[in-house]
Formats: sequence, C-alpha cells, structure tokens
Amino acid sequence: MKVSIVGATGYTGAELVRILSNHPQAELAYLTSESSAGEKLSRLYPHLAGHCDITLSTMAEIDKIARESDVIFVALPHGHAMKLGKQIAGASAKLIDLGADYRFKSPQVYEKWYKLPHVHPDSGAVYGLPELYRADVKNAKIVANPGCYTTASIMALYPLVKARLIDNASIIIDAKSGITGAGRALKLDSHFCEAGENFHAYSAVGHRHVPEIEQALCGCAGEEFTISFTPHLLPVSRGILATCYAKLNDGATPGKIAEAFGIYKGEFFVRLLGEGACPAIKNVRGSNFIDIGWHIDKRTGRVTVMSAIDNLVKGASGQAVQNMNILFGLDEKTGLTTLPSYP
Amino acid sequence: MKVSIVGATGYTGAELVRILSNHPQAELAYLTSESSAGEKLSRLYPHLAGHCDITLSTMAEIDKIARESDVIFVALPHGHAMKLGKQIAGASAKLIDLGADYRFKSPQVYEKWYKLPHVHPDSGAVYGLPELYRADVKNAKIVANPGCYTTASIMALYPLVKARLIDNASIIIDAKSGITGAGRALKLDSHFCEAGENFHAYSAVGHRHVPEIEQALCGCAGEEFTISFTPHLLPVSRGILATCYAKLNDGATPGKIAEAFGIYKGEFFVRLLGEGACPAIKNVRGSNFIDIGWHIDKRTGRVTVMSAIDNLVKGASGQAVQNMNILFGLDEKTGLTTLPSYP
Amino acid sequence: MKVSIVGATGYTGAELVRILSNHPQAELAYLTSESSAGEKLSRLYPHLAGHCDITLSTMAEIDKIARESDVIFVALPHGHAMKLGKQIAGASAKLIDLGADYRFKSPQVYEKWYKLPHVHPDSGAVYGLPELYRADVKNAKIVANPGCYTTASIMALYPLVKARLIDNASIIIDAKSGITGAGRALKLDSHFCEAGENFHAYSAVGHRHVPEIEQALCGCAGEEFTISFTPHLLPVSRGILATCYAKLNDGATPGKIAEAFGIYKGEFFVRLLGEGACPAIKNVRGSNFIDIGWHIDKRTGRVTVMSAIDNLVKGASGQAVQNMNILFGLDEKTGLTTLPSYP
Amino acid sequence: MKVSIVGATGYTGAELVRILSNHPQAELAYLTSESSAGEKLSRLYPHLAGHCDITLSTMAEIDKIARESDVIFVALPHGHAMKLGKQIAGASAKLIDLGADYRFKSPQVYEKWYKLPHVHPDSGAVYGLPELYRADVKNAKIVANPGCYTTASIMALYPLVKARLIDNASIIIDAKSGITGAGRALKLDSHFCEAGENFHAYSAVGHRHVPEIEQALCGCAGEEFTISFTPHLLPVSRGILATCYAKLNDGATPGKIAEAFGIYKGEFFVRLLGEGACPAIKNVRGSNFIDIGWHIDKRTGRVTVMSAIDNLVKGASGQAVQNMNILFGLDEKTGLTTLPSYP
Repeated sequence: MKVSIVGATGYTGAELVRILSNHPQAELAYLTSESSAGEKLSRLYPHLAGHCDITLSTMAEIDKIARESDVIFVALPHGHAMKLGKQIAGASAKLIDLGADYRFKSPQVYEKWYKLPHVHPDSGAVYGLPELYRADVKNAKIVANPGCYTTASIMALYPLVKARLIDNASIIIDAKSGITGAGRALKLDSHFCEAGENFHAYSAVGHRHVPEIEQALCGCAGEEFTISFTPHLLPVSRGILATCYAKLNDGATPGKIAEAFGIYKGEFFVRLLGEGACPAIKNVRGSNFIDIGWHIDKRTGRVTVMSAIDNLVKGASGQAVQNMNILFGLDEKTGLTTLPSYP
Repeated sequence: MKVSIVGATGYTGAELVRILSNHPQAELAYLTSESSAGEKLSRLYPHLAGHCDITLSTMAEIDKIARESDVIFVALPHGHAMKLGKQIAGASAKLIDLGADYRFKSPQVYEKWYKLPHVHPDSGAVYGLPELYRADVKNAKIVANPGCYTTASIMALYPLVKARLIDNASIIIDAKSGITGAGRALKLDSHFCEAGENFHAYSAVGHRHVPEIEQALCGCAGEEFTISFTPHLLPVSRGILATCYAKLNDGATPGKIAEAFGIYKGEFFVRLLGEGACPAIKNVRGSNFIDIGWHIDKRTGRVTVMSAIDNLVKGASGQAVQNMNILFGLDEKTGLTTLPSYP
Repeated sequence: MKVSIVGATGYTGAELVRILSNHPQAELAYLTSESSAGEKLSRLYPHLAGHCDITLSTMAEIDKIARESDVIFVALPHGHAMKLGKQIAGASAKLIDLGADYRFKSPQVYEKWYKLPHVHPDSGAVYGLPELYRADVKNAKIVANPGCYTTASIMALYPLVKARLIDNASIIIDAKSGITGAGRALKLDSHFCEAGENFHAYSAVGHRHVPEIEQALCGCAGEEFTISFTPHLLPVSRGILATCYAKLNDGATPGKIAEAFGIYKGEFFVRLLGEGACPAIKNVRGSNFIDIGWHIDKRTGRVTVMSAIDNLVKGASGQAVQNMNILFGLDEKTGLTTLPSYP
Repeated sequence: MKVSIVGATGYTGAELVRILSNHPQAELAYLTSESSAGEKLSRLYPHLAGHCDITLSTMAEIDKIARESDVIFVALPHGHAMKLGKQIAGASAKLIDLGADYRFKSPQVYEKWYKLPHVHPDSGAVYGLPELYRADVKNAKIVANPGCYTTASIMALYPLVKARLIDNASIIIDAKSGITGAGRALKLDSHFCEAGENFHAYSAVGHRHVPEIEQALCGCAGEEFTISFTPHLLPVSRGILATCYAKLNDGATPGKIAEAFGIYKGEFFVRLLGEGACPAIKNVRGSNFIDIGWHIDKRTGRVTVMSAIDNLVKGASGQAVQNMNILFGLDEKTGLTTLPSYP
C-alpha cells in the first residue's frame, strides 16, 4: 500500500512517519513540504536519520502523488485540504485529512467558525471517529480525522448523552493539552522559558473545536444545545486530558452510567478505568489508547468524566492510521499496538 | 518582632524563611522540626546556606517558644496546630496556622471532613483571607491561613456571588496545582519520572478544600449550596490555576460583572486582568499576587473566572506574612513587594 | 520463547515488558517482585492495563521459573543476581543480568568497588556489549548487560583507543543522565520539585561505572590507565549524554578519526553523525539507537566525542533484548526497530 | 539615581527591571526597545503588570537618555553597545554593557572572534567581575559585564590558576546552561517540544566565551595557554553549571587547594561549599550567589571544580547591578540580598 503525506514536516507528519514505519502493509511514497522541498525529512527530524531519508516534494506534484498513492494523509492548516480534495476527486487515492476542512456536515458551520467559504461541500467526506462511526468510514473516499480535543471530549461524553443520563445543556469541558498541540511553528507561547513551569487557558470563548463537539453530541441526542469548552496549555509535549462535567438526570444510577460506557466494550483502543478512576496522560503517551474514568458526586448531583489521549496519536496520526486500516479492510490495530512509553 | 516557625522543614516553612529574610521588622527566633531537630535548616535546604543557619528545635519546647516569640507560624499537617494553640492559649504570642485546624466556624464541619475531634473549638480563630476579612484579622489571636486552592477559588468567585450575578448552585471549579502542593514528603506521585510530562486529577469527589470554599461562598450568599471542585496535579513546582464556571443570572451584564470585581480596587495583591484575559501561573511565580480574568460566553450564558496564584506564596506563606503584617499594624505589603520571578 | 523477569517492577523491568510485548518470538512467563507479589503488574503500572495483567510471583519460586523459562532477565540491585545465577546454574535457562554482578572479569575488582564478596566467580559470564563483543555473547549462558553510563562511554571512546589516536591517560568523561537512572524508589533527589529546574553532579569521585569503563578501554588498549568520570542528574526522565574528552596523539588526523569510527559500519543501532555533530538525547528516546558525533579542536589538540542513548533502552532493557536475540540466534534487531518517539 | 536600560525587552532586561524594582536607590528612567517602542513593557511581560508600566522608547533618543540618566545598562546583541558608548562618551552617565563589546583588552581578539571591527577601542572600559577586579570597577566609566559561562568558569578556576596548583594547559570546562541563555527570540532549539526532555551540546569548538575565559586565566597566570570549553543546553529556564577539570601540579594538596579558594573569603555572593560538594543550580536560582565545590581524585591526579550560578542574575543582570553599586559607592549587595527561590 503506497502512502503519501502532504505536509509532512509538522509534528503530526513526523508522527505519521513513525507509526507507518512500524506498519507491515504501508510503504511511504511521497512526503511534501512547501518550505523544505528538496531536503530530506531526516535533516529536519534527526531522530529519523537512517530510517526515513525520503526527499521532500511539493504540493505542486499532487496529481502525480494522487496517481501513485493508495492513500494520502493531509496534515496542513485548514483551508488547504478541501482544495486538494477537490483537485484529486477523480483519482482513486483515498484522502485522510487531519485538519478541519471536512469535519462538518454543514458547510455553513465550517464557514461561520473558520471564516472561509467551503470549496468542496459535496465531497461525501465522513467523520472518522472509528469507535462511533466505523461503518461510515469503511466505504469513504475522504475521511475527516477528528480534532484532538474533540476526540477526547466526544468519546468521554457520547455514552452518557446517548443513554440520556445527563442534562446536555449543563455540559462543561475543561480541557488541557500538551504543547505539540500548538505545532512546531515558532510562537512565544511555545518557547521553553514561557511554557515551562507555566499553565494558562486560551481561546476561552469560541475555540474552533466547540462546533465539532456539538455536532457529534447534538447529533447523538437528536436535539440542539451548546456546551462550554475551555482549552489550557500544559507544560508537557504530548497529551490531552478532558475533564467533563454534567448534571445527572433523575434515575442516573452508578450502574446505568457504567452500563452506558459499555458501548466501548471490545474496543481495543478504549480502556475503561471505571468509576472513581483518574486517567493520566502519561499512561497513554505514544499509544493510540484513550483512557476513560468517571466520578459521581451525590452532593452536587453531577458526574465528572475524564479522558486521556496522546494528542499526536489518538488525537491525530494514530487515529488517522486507524482510519486507514478501516478504509483498506485491515485489522484496525495494525501498526498501532505498541504499548505506551512510560516513563 | 520575634518570629518562630513550628514545622519549618516543609516547603511552606522554607518559603516563610525566604520571605521573612526580606522583611525589615521580622527576626527569626525558633524553627522546629520533629524529624531533624538538632540540625541546621541549611543542611536540609542548601539554598539557605550562610543565610539561615539556625539549628532546629522541637515542638517539645513550645512553651518557651511561645514566651519568646511575638508570632508563631504553624506549618504542620492538620491535627497538630489545634493542640498547640490550646496549649499556648495563655501566652501573648499570636498564632498563624497554615493548616486546616482553625479554618472552620463549625467544629462539626471540621470533624466531618477531617475525621478528627476538634480539641480547641472555642479558640476565637479568624479566617485570614485579608482582602475579604481584613477587619476580623486585625484583632485576632489565632489566624487560620486559608488553603491554597481555596484562596484561588474564593477570591475568583466571591465578587460574583456577592453581587448575585451567578446561579450559585451551578458553580464548578476545575483547579490545577503544582507539585509543591503535595509537599516535600516522598510519594510516587511526586517522583519526577511520574509527575513530569504527566497530568491527572485526584480526589475528584470530596477534596477537603470543598467545605472551606463552600463556607466562604455560602456565607457570602446567605444561603446553602454545594459546589463541584476537581483538583489536578500540574507538572510544575509552583502555581495554582482555578478555572471557575457558573451560569449567569438574568441581567448579569459585562458591565455589572466588571463592577462586581471592583471590590478588589486598591488591593495591592490583586491584579484584575479584566474580561477576556487568561491569567498564567508564571506571571505570579514567587510573588503574593493573585491575577484574575474572566470570560462571558453568550452562547451558553456562562461566565468563566480564572485566577492564578503561587500556591506557596499567596496560597500559603506569603498570605501568612500578609496576615502577620495586619496583626501587628504594619503596612500589609511589608516584605512582600518582590516582583514575580520570570521566567 | 518463554521469558521471565526477576525484579519486574522497576523502570527497567517495565521497559522490558514494553519491548517484549512487541517482540514476535517472546512470551512472558513469570514476573517477580518481592514487595508486590500477588498483585498484577498493571496495578503498579497502569499504562500496561489490559496488556500485561500478569500476577507477580516472588524469587522464592526461582527454581520453577528457571525450569519453565528459556531466558531470565534479572533487574535487581547488585548482589542478588550472582546468588540466583549460582542457584540455577544447572538449569537450561539463559540469564541476562541488568545489574553489576557479572560485569567484571576480576572478582577482586567487583569486591573492591561494590564492597561484597562475589559468590559466583566461575560463572563464565560474558560482557554483553554486542557491537564490541558479539562473538562472546553468542554462546554464553550468563550475559552481563552493561551499565547505562558505560554503554555510552565505552562506545564513544573504544574506536579511538583501538586505533591508538588518543592519549588514554587524558580521558575525561562528563556524563549526564535522566532521572530514571536513579530508579523508581523514592528519594529526595528524584522528587519533582527538587529535580525539576535543577542540575548537579553526584559521586564525582569513585562512581561504580568507572571500573567497568576502564576494564573495557584498558582491555582494548592492552595497557592500564585511569579515567576521570563525572555523572550529573538531568531534569529529564530518559536519556544519557556522554561528553568525552581526550588529547589527540600526533598524526591523529580528521580522516583517521573518522576511519576509526568505521568499526561501527553496518551496525543497525549505531548512528554515526560524523565530525561536527552534537547528538541529542531526544533523538534516541524510546529507541535502541546510540548516536555518536565528534569534534576536533586544533587550538587545544583535543577531540571531544559525544554519544547519546536512552538509558532505559540501549542503556538497559533494549540492549538486554538485543543480547537475548543474539543468544537465541534471532535477527539482532527483532522487537527493537520502533523509531524514537519524538517529540 | 536614574537608571535606564537600552534593550529592555530581552530576558536580561526584564530581570534588570525585577532586580532594580527592589533597589532602594534606583529609579527607572528610560527603557528602550526597537521592536516594541511605544508599548508598555508590561504588555510584553505581564508579570510586571501594575509594577513597571513604563512606555518603551527607542535608541534614537540615546543622547537624551544619556543626559537624564546616571547609569545606562545596555542589553543588546554585540556590535551595538560600542557604537552607543562612543556616541555618549561625552555624557556623564556611566555605561554597563551586558554584551561582549567591551570585554576584551585587545580589539584584535574581539575582531577575530566576533568578526566585527571595534569602533571604540580606546574606551577605557574595565572588565566587571567584581570579586576579582573590584578596584578597577570603582572608577570606571564603562563596565563590561562578563558573560554568563565566563563568570561561572573564571570564578571556579581563577583561585587554582593563581595559586599555581594546576596544569593550565590541561583545563577542560564542560558547561551547561538553561534556555534563557539563548534569549527570548524564537528559535527551534528553544521550542518547548524540542528543548524539553532533551539535552545536547552546541558550538563544541570555538564558542565565543572561550577567549574571554582565556583572557582572564592567562592574565592571572602570566602565560598563554588554551582551554577546552563545551557548552550544553539544559532543559531548565535558568542556571549554569560549569564542571571544570584540570591536572593537579605536584604538591597540590587538599589543604592548599582549600586555601586557594580562600581568596573569596568575605565575598557575600560566593558560597564555598568545600571539597566533596556538588553545587546545584536550583540552590542559586533567582539570586546573585555563586556556589562552588571541588573534588580531588587521587587515582587520576585531577581536580574537578564545579560552580553554579543563575545565568540571568550572577551571569548577567545581578552582576550588572553589583557593578552599578560599586560604581556609585553603594553597599555592593544593595538590592541583591533576596534569597534563592526554592523550589
């Protein structure tokens, strides 16, 4: 299977290379970078030296890349993938977009939150959160890989929304992400001396992952509601922890709550730690696992669900490979069974 | 002014020494440690070498210490200070307790949450959050220094509760603390290789700072309600960030919200960053400041208030010195004007 | 192939489990722990939950373990392995010791530096640094896995000693290790608030890896000399960087130096970065690679060789699996090809 | 005393502001920044909010600044200060340069290592390492504040060179610096995800602090020799540790070595930890102290001297204020007595 990556020099691109190097069916074909075309990827990422010395191409060659690839991962800022997707719509290559372009059923929602007209609204893209929408992914041509915060948030809350155990209007998600979430681009907020020994929120109102979470949860509930979502920047490289609060509905017993999470039974990548457990980001580091625990507070009548993922793996590149495996009828965990790296 | 510290070898004790060394009116008299009595403090804390070479005493000498001190800071686990306080009730020395023993108006609440009978219920102790209860502190004999999480949480929410702008029953506090909050004692959770590059919640239901926060906020509101509070362990040494959520009442305009925070006008240690600002723990590191910002989300009808403190300073030793200054009629900021250490 | 680990609950034990879980020929049989026998390993290491739920045994069962295992890794403090090795000398199981007991050709050297009589001096153990002593390992019964600092130091300097390009008596090794090197045991030096944002040397004279390095380098040179070695504690979890200095002999040209490192040609785990390169520990994190670079200073007539390894992988568990592969005639890199985890 | 800072927006500038805010005789007059002129410093450094809200000027106003200031700190990249110094040579303001321009007695040495012609060779500047050259500083017009690595290195080795106890040609300095040493400018090497959990050397041959160290040590010895110096990047914000190696001369007994360090007796900022001690950067963090310890290895005949400083304080802004105090006849420790911030 020939695999290409458009935008290979960001952290999600490098993580794709790492994961795919361990995948028995995948062979890297083209890697592109607009800023570093002509260089070897291993010059930008010396940890790959001797093991991924492919020379970087550019997006200008996308038609050729599409002809010679079975699947293309797009790891670019939003706005680019929809143009590429439209351009290569006639090619047989599947496209897995790690950005936001194909995540919304409604182009209007995309346009409202991303301030860009959608150029490929009839793409037929599906939302690639495999544990919830696996059937859709199987036959897709274009897969929208979910956002990192959204993967953690939706998977934590979906079971309770589906089982109608919580007051949806009461949902509050307090989320914390490692600094790879901000990418490899140089920003003061990512400077070691600014981010280290620091912690703060950002985009406290109106973060772009909000409509994505609402789309999934409202879709599940069959009703419209809004959620509160606050992202924070953690002084770690990798990892997201989502602490999700909701008011319990009458009759939401501990047993029914545990039962609701049973929808993940048999899911290799979901580890249900159960009631009373606090998942930790270090326990999933480097792996495609999502660890989920929950807490019921009788005094307040609230449930707190916590989920932990590695934002670069289950929150991006690992989930993308999981989607690729589904698209091509492979065992879903192929290339993704390495245990977390601890400590 | 002769100052003694009972339990000087924990992080709050060492921080008291650091702050007091910069205080023009304070002179260290006795420092105690049960585990290291007879040693110099600077052997346990080489950063103090040459500048605090006092030899550690033991609590057994408390009567002598009380006679020869103007004020005694107690930095011990809960359960000890109330015994000491009772024993030296007849001495003229003031007592500032950094632990939980004297924080509750109701001994029953203390006994319920700390599982210990209170041996000094008629102490007359006051709750030493100066910005809110300064008048009480002035004439106190015993001051209960507030908890670290509670200082950050109460100061963030009190203005809105007081101004009746939020639905008190909707309050949720998602709090994150640096690892000094867990003390210098050896625990697996504080091991560098476990805590570094990690993040998780703990005591997700029933943390002991809950009743302390409720006592203050319910007292302010004049009604009983419960709050949700979830503490998390941040991979930093110092700092607490509290992200506090509440439903806005009808008529709670941005202007009224800003006005409510006006109760802190003129407070040297409170920096109101205003609406839309996200305080960062690094900006208060090493200082007695509390930085506060807030966000209004029209979509959800909620306000999010964030506050940042250094848990060892405004959350412990700095606030204790602030209380000492009030007790002795000094300028409240004496010894506490050093700017944050950044980066 | 049945594999057991004696002392499975330390960091090297957990890393063995992680690596072996990815090894197609290895199957875990017994894991022991004296302090946690009867518990599941995944309770101590939740990152293994669902993937290594073996219940821990004790060393008391060593005879049974030896009968039912093809190979036993011993990850215990020094002094234990030699007793075990002697006890199971009659069994067919191979033994790979990650500790110091079998590292010295001379029991006297062991006894001098480790202050213990050697109980198994006629063990026939070989020193398992595969790139230098592969042939010895092939037929061994007992393999002494080298120390972490020693692996980095010996591999950096051996080529130049062998080629007689440096003044051996001038060798100085300034080494820096991540905190997993100090193990999972609770120590003040490993407390996050002590180790984080800190850096210092320790055991500046007489660290126990000195005789191990000297044994290899003097053995190579065919003459006796002493080296200077200073270890430091880095505020990272994993990684060792050794900065090695030596005076160049007359005629030691850049070409000859590069040629000397050619002894590693074809070695999968050695990445020669060349003259002028500075290896970084993050580039080998989680992998069995050793990256080597060197610098020639004409002004001073010195060469500086730097090597970077992951102390838990090439410095311990990865190298142990590499030795296991050799012992059993497998491809040496089986289970060890996962690329470094970056960032 | 009116104090101005040219180039106030780097880390050393911000640290000067923090230290001077605690200095009873200093009053900030002008702060300049070419990139942020017209803004308040506290917008760039929110930790200063409410406490240094001065609006930034530009260097274009240097003549006015010189007229209205008693002392000007220059915290700019090399090449700028010498132009400013020449321009304001006629003004009465003293100049303390934190850069390299005035550090060399010989303009040729400057030109060789910095690749720039020196425009102010007859400046009469003195090298401001107070513990060694205090008398020179007293009457200076221009003070060259030493480099951070150089302060740590020279102060560690000077006593032994002076006492002729070591073979000067054998000196090797292995130095490690926190990331503030690379400044606040955005560089990939300072990105949290690249620098965190990482460690590597850089400029392994020919770092610009080499000639500065040699100038001091050769000057002391009265003979020419070269030293080896290797800087490394530590994953901490602040701190330098220099591990310095040298061959002992015959007759260099432990007693004579201890005696040699006696030249620092009475020096407030020098803490001699003695033989066998390993200074730690965290013990000096935020302070102007330099901690020094040493080790004698009989096996190798070498001494290892280690010194720890905060690179932003004793390695830059603190030492600059120390120089200012000397220039103006103040107690040398004025404004510099705050104890280290630990942890």
